[in-house]
Amino acid sequence: MDVRKYISELGQQALSASRVLSQASTNAKNSALLAIADIIIENKGSLVEINKKDLEAGKKHGLDAALLDRLELNEERILAMAQGLREIAALPDPIGEISNLSYRPSGIQVGKMRVPLGVIGIIYESRPNVTADAAGLCLKSGNATILRGGSEAINSNQAIESYIKTGLEKAGLPTTSVQVVKTIDRAAVMELVRMKEYIDVIVPRGGKGLIENISNEARVPIIKHLDGICHVYIDDKADIQKAIDIAINSKTHRYGVCNAMETLLIAKDIAEQILPKLQERFNEKGVELRGCEQTRDILTNINPASDEDWDTEYLAPILSIKITNGLAGAIEHIHAHSSGHTESIVTEDITRARKFISEVDSSSVIINASTRFADGYEYGLGAEIGTSTDKLHVRGPVGVEGLTSQKFVVIGDGQIRA
Amino acid sequence: MDVRKYISELGQQALSASRVLSQASTNAKNSALLAIADIIIENKGSLVEINKKDLEAGKKHGLDAALLDRLELNEERILAMAQGLREIAALPDPIGEISNLSYRPSGIQVGKMRVPLGVIGIIYESRPNVTADAAGLCLKSGNATILRGGSEAINSNQAIESYIKTGLEKAGLPTTSVQVVKTIDRAAVMELVRMKEYIDVIVPRGGKGLIENISNEARVPIIKHLDGICHVYIDDKADIQKAIDIAINSKTHRYGVCNAMETLLIAKDIAEQILPKLQERFNEKGVELRGCEQTRDILTNINPASDEDWDTEYLAPILSIKITNGLAGAIEHIHAHSSGHTESIVTEDITRARKFISEVDSSSVIINASTRFADGYEYGLGAEIGTSTDKLHVRGPVGVEGLTSQKFVVIGDGQIRA
Repeated sequence: MDVRKYISELGQQALSASRVLSQASTNAKNSALLAIADIIIENKGSLVEINKKDLEAGKKHGLDAALLDRLELNEERILAMAQGLREIAALPDPIGEISNLSYRPSGIQVGKMRVPLGVIGIIYESRPNVTADAAGLCLKSGNATILRGGSEAINSNQAIESYIKTGLEKAGLPTTSVQVVKTIDRAAVMELVRMKEYIDVIVPRGGKGLIENISNEARVPIIKHLDGICHVYIDDKADIQKAIDIAINSKTHRYGVCNAMETLLIAKDIAEQILPKLQERFNEKGVELRGCEQTRDILTNINPASDEDWDTEYLAPILSIKITNGLAGAIEHIHAHSSGHTESIVTEDITRARKFISEVDSSSVIINASTRFADGYEYGLGAEIGTSTDKLHVRGPVGVEGLTSQKFVVIGDGQIRA
Repeated sequence: MDVRKYISELGQQALSASRVLSQASTNAKNSALLAIADIIIENKGSLVEINKKDLEAGKKHGLDAALLDRLELNEERILAMAQGLREIAALPDPIGEISNLSYRPSGIQVGKMRVPLGVIGIIYESRPNVTADAAGLCLKSGNATILRGGSEAINSNQAIESYIKTGLEKAGLPTTSVQVVKTIDRAAVMELVRMKEYIDVIVPRGGKGLIENISNEARVPIIKHLDGICHVYIDDKADIQKAIDIAINSKTHRYGVCNAMETLLIAKDIAEQILPKLQERFNEKGVELRGCEQTRDILTNINPASDEDWDTEYLAPILSIKITNGLAGAIEHIHAHSSGHTESIVTEDITRARKFISEVDSSSVIINASTRFADGYEYGLGAEIGTSTDKLHVRGPVGVEGLTSQKFVVIGDGQIRA
């Protein structure tokens, strides 16, 4: 198989489909989404069977238990996938909205119109539900999609693609609106991320290694999220109960997520009062604590945090704790070690809260709430295709609006420049 | 000189300065802009002298007349440069604006806050006034800047940098907020565009060759504009007088600009009526016409347009003309040949206007007005740092807002995820 030629054909077909999709009515797009959801549910039995092939092959190739779990599609997960598509159908359609249309001194009216980006390439690992989620978000925002999932999920992904194509056909939309790459050759990824003539943006989803690799090779712009080294800072003007609740929730609500707290910062004037209480709660949850020297003067039985700990996304029940010289020390630590995902301050002092919000340059900056709120659903964006820690184009949770662009529209009645 | 070390030092200094600038008050930023304008005017005599050195060296190196003209700073241009900075000072400050702050079901408030991008690298050719314009726009939007101008303007650029630094100092802002690269070694450009750890975005300004080269080498995201192959389509439902005025203005108002029309499309049913009138007007202006076969059936004395013409940005008094099969043919031609900058339709038919606005995917889409309106001042954005033909982040004229990002801000009173 000539991979370059194959990927180029996918690109051309996607571009053609994107022209139709960009003009598709909200009704047509929603009909397709609902039809796909129905077809997925109708075929749930056979999808489980097809997925078993991937699981068996995965076992043979020695995938570990966590990866096999992510690869698995059971009935519950299939129903959730269908439900996700229905929720995307229920979201408002961002396309075509014209904002700020206003008269200029010359007599022209100038505004901005929201339009699809065009063709979106998604590169992801193991979880086959991403095939439906990502295709659904791109479809709603009027974009054609080329999906390149993990080789271990190839049978599941192709089955899901076939349901999507049937749904698209039912709604009268081009079946090439969503295409799954059918080769597991790694060269296909490199072709995709360099195909500027057909692809407008690449969204990589997966481990840091995958994303860094793609970023370095890509010529197509990327919306990416590298890692989430999130901080909670407990100020000495904090409400103690709120501080404990927020710290515990930010760390222990779920461990393997990018908006979980990885480092806790505590103002030195409140540390002695709060640390023993926190330790008790974290012990109940089985979280391993690692502390700076000052922390270990108070909690004498915990391990030291090494320099490396401050830059580590554990995604596990481990927490590093540092005592800082108040707010200034906390901001300094965040500037040096944050991945720019999410940071939260716990304080009752409005001037300090204002300073934190203003000086901390992360995609989400939070006052008196858990870092776990940094999420598309919690923010009211609906489903998200990922979280961007980049500063350009879109920052934080990326919903349908993040997959759009705005062009200028000008309406005149014969104006020319003098 | 160790170029990598030097550029890395500039990057570190810019990052430190950007932290201060991001927190600078609107007053401080405006004071600096006004002070720089005053200092430039005070020093206009010596700036002309310094610029003469660049001009003499340019002549020695055989720069052509057009390049020497762009390099020249005379009193009028220096006053315009100062005036530009005063206009930037008068613009509203976009930084810190919080929009859409609203309550979510969980009780948290979620909004978006506008913040600077951080450090912006500008790479440009010959015209030294870009040094002041670009630095001014970046300063207003709270960004630190590293400027790499053309080697032929190095003395002028360094003089302007010294005025900027004096103005920054007067306003109490870090003098490293604006830094001009002091080596003409090309390796400095390659270091700049790959220095992801310190630079958030690169804005290249110059010829297509320079920009393509930088795009291919860059690892830092780029806001770019490659070329402006702009179209005017005269529909058969057009008002003849508006059509003629708009076509003439779009082509002849200025030839060397990116928003000038390069190809005129005319519906076949109106071509015979309008083409002879247009030819008369274009002849008066000395514009060379090149036509498709059908055009040459009507205007028998003009040259044929080759395939290459449809993809050429002339930036000169040359115009290619094509007769199309109505609106559908025009949109097809635009999809195939436009650079995505600006297209205009002339029609009195609202359904066709609506279709054109919806289907043409360019940074500016215009109904019944000249393509020359695609401009930051005309759109009310104030000065522009360039025009983006990319779809991500910012499209069309890029003013101060295009140099900013939005982060999520969340305000709670102790909320945790259930």
